[in-house]
Amino acid sequence: MDLKQFLQKSKTEIEQQLPECISHLEAPPTLKEAMLYSLSAGGKRVRPVLLLATLHAFNRDEKIGTNIACAIEMLHTYSLIHDDLPAMDDDDLRRGKPTNHKVFGEAMAILAGDALLTYSFQLISEMNSPNVTDGMKVKLMQELAKAAGPEGMVGGQVADMEGEGKSLTLEELEYIHDHKTGDLLTYSVIAGAILAEAKEEEIEQLRLFGKELGLVFQIKDDILDIEGDAAMIGKPVGSDFGKEKSTYPALLTMDGAKEKLFEHTNRAKEYLYNVKLENSLLMAITDYIVERDH
Amino acid sequence: MDLKQFLQKSKTEIEQQLPECISHLEAPPTLKEAMLYSLSAGGKRVRPVLLLATLHAFNRDEKIGTNIACAIEMLHTYSLIHDDLPAMDDDDLRRGKPTNHKVFGEAMAILAGDALLTYSFQLISEMNSPNVTDGMKVKLMQELAKAAGPEGMVGGQVADMEGEGKSLTLEELEYIHDHKTGDLLTYSVIAGAILAEAKEEEIEQLRLFGKELGLVFQIKDDILDIEGDAAMIGKPVGSDFGKEKSTYPALLTMDGAKEKLFEHTNRAKEYLYNVKLENSLLMAITDYIVERDH
Repeated sequence: MDLKQFLQKSKTEIEQQLPECISHLEAPPTLKEAMLYSLSAGGKRVRPVLLLATLHAFNRDEKIGTNIACAIEMLHTYSLIHDDLPAMDDDDLRRGKPTNHKVFGEAMAILAGDALLTYSFQLISEMNSPNVTDGMKVKLMQELAKAAGPEGMVGGQVADMEGEGKSLTLEELEYIHDHKTGDLLTYSVIAGAILAEAKEEEIEQLRLFGKELGLVFQIKDDILDIEGDAAMIGKPVGSDFGKEKSTYPALLTMDGAKEKLFEHTNRAKEYLYNVKLENSLLMAITDYIVERDH
Repeated sequence: MDLKQFLQKSKTEIEQQLPECISHLEAPPTLKEAMLYSLSAGGKRVRPVLLLATLHAFNRDEKIGTNIACAIEMLHTYSLIHDDLPAMDDDDLRRGKPTNHKVFGEAMAILAGDALLTYSFQLISEMNSPNVTDGMKVKLMQELAKAAGPEGMVGGQVADMEGEGKSLTLEELEYIHDHKTGDLLTYSVIAGAILAEAKEEEIEQLRLFGKELGLVFQIKDDILDIEGDAAMIGKPVGSDFGKEKSTYPALLTMDGAKEKLFEHTNRAKEYLYNVKLENSLLMAITDYIVERDH
């Protein structure tokens, strides 16, 4: 299967599945509406796609990844809703649509985020394929909590916030991106490998791959934020720059940032060679992330 | 062991354990400080005590409940931090101390809450007693997600928010309290029963006990909010009334509320008789919750 087909198929599947996960919830209708609003806002669905691509790379039926693909997208969506809040980035638009709190109010946006975060663990616990053991579920939830919690995404978010208006070292910038973006991307790959019953050594190589891919993703984002087309990326070009956030181009010049992009891309690919997945969709996705224009 | 001793011992244990759980985290220091600030704000620790009392009732070593006791208290604390935010209840004081966002700012308070919620699942996944199987961990995390998520606490919080300024029916008020307060109290009991390898029927009776206990807890809170002593309860008397929230005394008169308190207390106790735990600490805790003055 070629990448374009795979991306389209995975995106369609996950976008069909997400509303189903919400619709059967016995919860106040406004809460469900607020959760679904942000889940339906589109986007590339990179994380679920990475999970499904990892299953594909290990020749597993991607169907067993459905619940966890939804869980990852919910967790990612919660982080966007909270990031956009007035007390945080104070963004009015996300992917060209009004942000959650602009539509549902701040209190509901906070609660919709809390609900999505919590529900993502429930979805994993409810996986009912005969191939998914309790041991796998525990590992999947443990890795998710680590990737998303104080040592992961939330930690990265705090470091990002505390770094605003300061000039950071490359090491500090990498810490932020490793955790703020990298950990959940890495989790998406790891989760696929756990489900595919990959060996411990393979999982660890894929963890390193995920870390590099996270940096690739973020450096490319920084570059697009300056060179990209506002209509394509769904927010004003240069919007991060205005908030005095440190970026790779600001720290290393645009040429330096592109060099780093190249370097981390190559390293990511090396880890795929180490586990003999150089001909898998994970390789194609790496190139796709580097070459995307939005 | 008498109740007073047990409460003191459990409170001391949990209050020793909570800072240890935070201290070994590799996370930005301010985030850890913000998490610990609210965890250390005191309180009755009712939820962890209920968990430990359930283990005690089933003659199990309470030590196996340590991680999960901390997880429950973290989850409860996250809910308080988010509830107090300006966009939510906008409270400046909690248990007589400035609320989290008053000390650390709104953004950090949101993130500290997110971190505590996520970390609570990690703590359960990391339980390493030989008596705790993967199957038990999955059940413990699944029940926690249900109790805390859109069908549980967050759902109750949304219903509470949407009910402000409206006159609710008794059924609507019970929905709010069942979920906003009841589900996590119930979880504390259920989690103890799961850890104690109680039978499915016993767990279901204890679930009904927890639901009644949650209502007892909330009705008593409503009564104390009017009749209590501000210094004892740590917030101004009548503060919920000022926000036009529906309460049992407002809906049923003070006499009616006290009648309901009596009714739900008796029902709670019946469920304990059904599982032959009428001589356990759970019975004593039920009385304690009814008779407390703060």
